[in-house]
Amino acid sequence: MALINENFSNLKENYLFIDIAKKIKAYRQANPDKELIRMGIGDVTRPLAPAVVEAMKKGADEMGHRETFRGYEDSGRGYGFLRNAVSGYYKTMGADIDPDEILISDGAKSDCGNIVDIFGSGNTVLITDPAYPVYVDSNVMSGKEIIYASSNEGNGFAAIPDENVKSDIIYLCSPNNPTGSVYTKEQLKKWVDYAISQKAIIIFDSAYEAFIRDKDLPRSIFTIEGARKCAIEISSLSKTAGFTGTRCGYTVIPKELEAYKSNGEAVNVFKIWCRRQGSKFNGVSYPVQCAAAAVFTPEGQAQTHADIDYYMENAAIMTETCDELGIKYTGGKNSPYIWLKCPNNMESWEFFDYLLNEIQVVGTPGEGFGPNGKGWFRLTAFGTRENTIEAMNRLKKLLK
Amino acid sequence: MALINENFSNLKENYLFIDIAKKIKAYRQANPDKELIRMGIGDVTRPLAPAVVEAMKKGADEMGHRETFRGYEDSGRGYGFLRNAVSGYYKTMGADIDPDEILISDGAKSDCGNIVDIFGSGNTVLITDPAYPVYVDSNVMSGKEIIYASSNEGNGFAAIPDENVKSDIIYLCSPNNPTGSVYTKEQLKKWVDYAISQKAIIIFDSAYEAFIRDKDLPRSIFTIEGARKCAIEISSLSKTAGFTGTRCGYTVIPKELEAYKSNGEAVNVFKIWCRRQGSKFNGVSYPVQCAAAAVFTPEGQAQTHADIDYYMENAAIMTETCDELGIKYTGGKNSPYIWLKCPNNMESWEFFDYLLNEIQVVGTPGEGFGPNGKGWFRLTAFGTRENTIEAMNRLKKLLK
Repeated sequence: MALINENFSNLKENYLFIDIAKKIKAYRQANPDKELIRMGIGDVTRPLAPAVVEAMKKGADEMGHRETFRGYEDSGRGYGFLRNAVSGYYKTMGADIDPDEILISDGAKSDCGNIVDIFGSGNTVLITDPAYPVYVDSNVMSGKEIIYASSNEGNGFAAIPDENVKSDIIYLCSPNNPTGSVYTKEQLKKWVDYAISQKAIIIFDSAYEAFIRDKDLPRSIFTIEGARKCAIEISSLSKTAGFTGTRCGYTVIPKELEAYKSNGEAVNVFKIWCRRQGSKFNGVSYPVQCAAAAVFTPEGQAQTHADIDYYMENAAIMTETCDELGIKYTGGKNSPYIWLKCPNNMESWEFFDYLLNEIQVVGTPGEGFGPNGKGWFRLTAFGTRENTIEAMNRLKKLLK
Repeated sequence: MALINENFSNLKENYLFIDIAKKIKAYRQANPDKELIRMGIGDVTRPLAPAVVEAMKKGADEMGHRETFRGYEDSGRGYGFLRNAVSGYYKTMGADIDPDEILISDGAKSDCGNIVDIFGSGNTVLITDPAYPVYVDSNVMSGKEIIYASSNEGNGFAAIPDENVKSDIIYLCSPNNPTGSVYTKEQLKKWVDYAISQKAIIIFDSAYEAFIRDKDLPRSIFTIEGARKCAIEISSLSKTAGFTGTRCGYTVIPKELEAYKSNGEAVNVFKIWCRRQGSKFNGVSYPVQCAAAAVFTPEGQAQTHADIDYYMENAAIMTETCDELGIKYTGGKNSPYIWLKCPNNMESWEFFDYLLNEIQVVGTPGEGFGPNGKGWFRLTAFGTRENTIEAMNRLKKLLK
């Protein structure tokens, strides 16, 4: 009798964004004439940069000729040209990462979810509350014990470590999804010191690093001393270069990073992850890797930075609106997310329905990211300028 | 203390193809002047079909314009245009598969490896010996009990079910990698009947279905009565259309397929897999999906069939050589693999070294696929015509 993995019964019934999609669908069916403005799911709206499109087409052309055709990638970890480009990008952030420590992925979500495979079920997993649902769900699926670090209004929705708490695997995300908060170097150093003291490993999600404009804020955990002993960084081009539908990311595992057998014997994490990927992944499409490499050329950097500027101007329009309306929020600076306190003491889903029904603006209920998100709400700056302005105007009209 | 998943200690030290790559590298360093002919790893050599390249470039262009840009796919299961195309393709094989039962993947290896996530650790997993190493390794990693069904010279390397053996999850591959054997409808019906009697689920790997030219042989398990009650089919465009470096495949899970909780309660498998993918996968690159859809157009079918014809002519050259040399083999008909008995009672790795050192031909040692592969050897028909002819000439000279 084929037995299902019963850990799946411990998951919440549905994935947050599926719930939202259902509500939207129902609203649309009931109100076919109303135009919705989507500021919920963190999807981008700007097209791929011209340099990126050209590189992908060139890659596709190469695949069409015997002399330049590429089959399986030998390692499945990404072509050297792309790993070198990412390594160079890290240099601009002040982190020294060898190309051989970089593994090209089909996006941060896959590696974020699949990384649980290499850790034993005896680990205590520390996740900030609120957090990106993938951290929780992937660990629930693999039956691991989860505890939470509180991100709340008091600490600016940037949880800090508690030395009295024992944990083995720690998920951090900065700039944070959903709260938009960004760790300072000092705060991140506290996490690194804590992890080292616990012999724990930090899974650091830096998918939103490109939105950091303040030069004093760390864009990679590997700019923090000690991080090579305790951290894996998972990043993505989804938000950096509009790759949400193109699918490419990268994961950094320092060669010296170790985890442990229950008898205390140290095991090299990079090798174990490669072994996992060697059996369950076969590398990223060659033309997509060509497209990704183009992001890191001077031309690609200029073009994708312009897109991020565009989104950050949206964010400024949104934070100005919140300021004007006296709405409390975090994020919006160095982050594409605005995390706001629902006005009039509304609950998250109540505010979701309110915005959907009254002004046809779709956001994301904070409690979908964890209990501490109750009464909070996430808006994203990834929309078009017109929609962002229109949504903020509607919001002002509604709440003034 | 971050604990590693200790099941990884139970894996064989290295992945077969990594061992081979190391041996090749060492040989090349010692003999830089010698030209190797690679007939080992099952990689293709023909470029992507023109229709496929054009579709990918068109998709890339669409990504470069705001009006046609695509971000996250709503479902992550693949665009309707591609699922419809795959459904139509199944019709030509005589299988009625709803587009909603098709999930687009980044290749068969990912889904084959990741499918273990949805099954509990209490399952007994039945794998044929020899088999594609991913089946074994992914189950070892997740700590499942594995038993083997013997594929051997006596049964033409096509294992048949034993009603006295209890199993819960069954891996089958036809046309088989590595043995090239192809199940008849009658043989596959026996497996379906066996699986239903056990309430087991068959993971059916049909990655090589496009090589079946005999109209009486089943190209999908879903051409067999009862299979919808007991089977998942995982397939790929890697060999069908040279997508080894382009990365796209598809998995079929009938909507009515059930697995069980330990208390006997039935659970819908499609839903659980979607839940898994919803947290650990984010869909396939849009331009790659465009490329994949082009495979199923009349033009794409004509072009990719011509490539398969080319490989099958290689296979014919290889089987003729084996016949001439009196070497026993399976496969080579309706399959790109020739599975041959090492001459002169040589062991697999011995024959590997012999071919590498004497005639610079690289094959795959049969025992890399399991104990029953001892003394057997895999060659693939995916090389160029020139290399195939040259390798066979060298082999004739060596063994005559």
